[in-house]
Amino acid sequence: MKLPSLVKLVDVGPRDGLQNEKQPVAAAVKIELVHRLQAAGLKEIEVTSYVSPKWVPQMADNHEVMSGMQRQSDVRYSVLTPNLKGFESALLDKPDEIVVFGAASEAFSQKNINCSIAESIERFAPVVEAAKAAGIAVRGAMSCTVGCPYEGDIAPERVAYLAGLMKGIGVQRVDVADTIGVGTPRRVQAAIEATLKHYSLDDVSGHFHDTYGQALSNTLAALELGVWNFQSSVAGLGGCPYAKGATGNVATEDVVYLLHGLGIETGIDLDALVDAGSYISEQLGRPSGSRVARALLAKRATS
Amino acid sequence: MKLPSLVKLVDVGPRDGLQNEKQPVAAAVKIELVHRLQAAGLKEIEVTSYVSPKWVPQMADNHEVMSGMQRQSDVRYSVLTPNLKGFESALLDKPDEIVVFGAASEAFSQKNINCSIAESIERFAPVVEAAKAAGIAVRGAMSCTVGCPYEGDIAPERVAYLAGLMKGIGVQRVDVADTIGVGTPRRVQAAIEATLKHYSLDDVSGHFHDTYGQALSNTLAALELGVWNFQSSVAGLGGCPYAKGATGNVATEDVVYLLHGLGIETGIDLDALVDAGSYISEQLGRPSGSRVARALLAKRATS
Repeated sequence: MKLPSLVKLVDVGPRDGLQNEKQPVAAAVKIELVHRLQAAGLKEIEVTSYVSPKWVPQMADNHEVMSGMQRQSDVRYSVLTPNLKGFESALLDKPDEIVVFGAASEAFSQKNINCSIAESIERFAPVVEAAKAAGIAVRGAMSCTVGCPYEGDIAPERVAYLAGLMKGIGVQRVDVADTIGVGTPRRVQAAIEATLKHYSLDDVSGHFHDTYGQALSNTLAALELGVWNFQSSVAGLGGCPYAKGATGNVATEDVVYLLHGLGIETGIDLDALVDAGSYISEQLGRPSGSRVARALLAKRATS
Repeated sequence: MKLPSLVKLVDVGPRDGLQNEKQPVAAAVKIELVHRLQAAGLKEIEVTSYVSPKWVPQMADNHEVMSGMQRQSDVRYSVLTPNLKGFESALLDKPDEIVVFGAASEAFSQKNINCSIAESIERFAPVVEAAKAAGIAVRGAMSCTVGCPYEGDIAPERVAYLAGLMKGIGVQRVDVADTIGVGTPRRVQAAIEATLKHYSLDDVSGHFHDTYGQALSNTLAALELGVWNFQSSVAGLGGCPYAKGATGNVATEDVVYLLHGLGIETGIDLDALVDAGSYISEQLGRPSGSRVARALLAKRATS
């Protein structure tokens, strides 16, 4: 196995993880989570989103969180911006990077944001332009790159199509997301290879959900292609809205354990990360979604 | 990725999975589980063990289970035999294969069975001889091949040493088990490569615990070495006695999902397997340890 020697992780827990929580999570808790993540060595954190509080009430405190946290100069803070209005609000809080998004599935795009894939990307063109003018980086989250809850399997050609549209409006790097966690290694590799038609290896990241427990084997398969950027969520925050009771984002702890076991550097302190996960899990009143955290906590308890 | 086109799975749920259950599981339930596993397409099932009921009361019904189940001629039924006395009892029930065992960790061998690795294998020599005389196959379960709860990391040389001892007494094939689930892909590959010094690829199987969520990536790594035999446990039966609250055996459902996703043939009907897992999970009164089962059951519930 030829693998990268270094991997960079983006923890998406504060945003992607908490956005679907039914009970409101206090801004102070989100801020503490960001602080704990950066103390554990995370160098990229997806903090919040600037979307209408009517649709996503959990993220209504975006300004409070972004202005309340103590920033580290070596950490990149990203935020989701669904449109120009959201971008303009975000701009006041000086994110290092904004995240725009699109689906590789037409059905998902229609059901989720009520327009075609092409239309959705076109609408982001002025956002990307404004971000560039403001000197802010732009990442594109590509959802449903392996499977879709409405269409089933997604062909790699559809992923290449979406990546091409993203590239066309000037998105600098993209996430290959298996939004419903149905992917397995060869299919995930095909989605990544399709993306590599438009983006270089350094600008492609893997974002795998663990709904079917496949996220780490998909991570290994992506590493074998040379991918060295991944998204994950501390404590596996974020359920899967398309399968009740199922897990969503792969836990950052589980990815870090895999990477360190492979001798790959991450700059992350796994024990401190487990503590960050325990903190937010206690706040949410439920056990961590991370198997590594559960095993290490059980081990700590017996020793 | 070059992978095998066919994989054979041994479901160890009835034996390895249920042996640590606190509440007794009725023989009729175990028999029904075996029936459901073979109906789902499993061709190898580890049914029970012939160990003193003083030590493992859950397996006291070994004769009842072995004589009560309806055998299929194309299914191989294996049983654990810790000594000659156990083997003689097992012989009456005509297993297709017996399983002997040893640890790659001296500390584990001492704590678990109170003798050195070499002594433990020596004691199995008459069992293996008797099995051969009776025309019964012998598999060797090699535990702690990656890590040990007492010693920590286990060097591949220790695995090669154990495999050599197993080969020396005539054990026909061996399992490379990550008993406490701490392994990651490169370390698991090293344990397998050490085993391959004494056994051919066809006679080596992977047995990975999912305590740290790494079992499927370890399975992928083993597949990449050409390994095509694996052990797993329906519904992830069998906790980890060395880490309270942590999961143990990887769930057969999760392995099958991975293999089918990779285009690898198993002969197993995943839906029927999920039903078998639901059956035993209901009997035990707890949710399945399989992420695939939980995701598929959630999907069934919404459709």
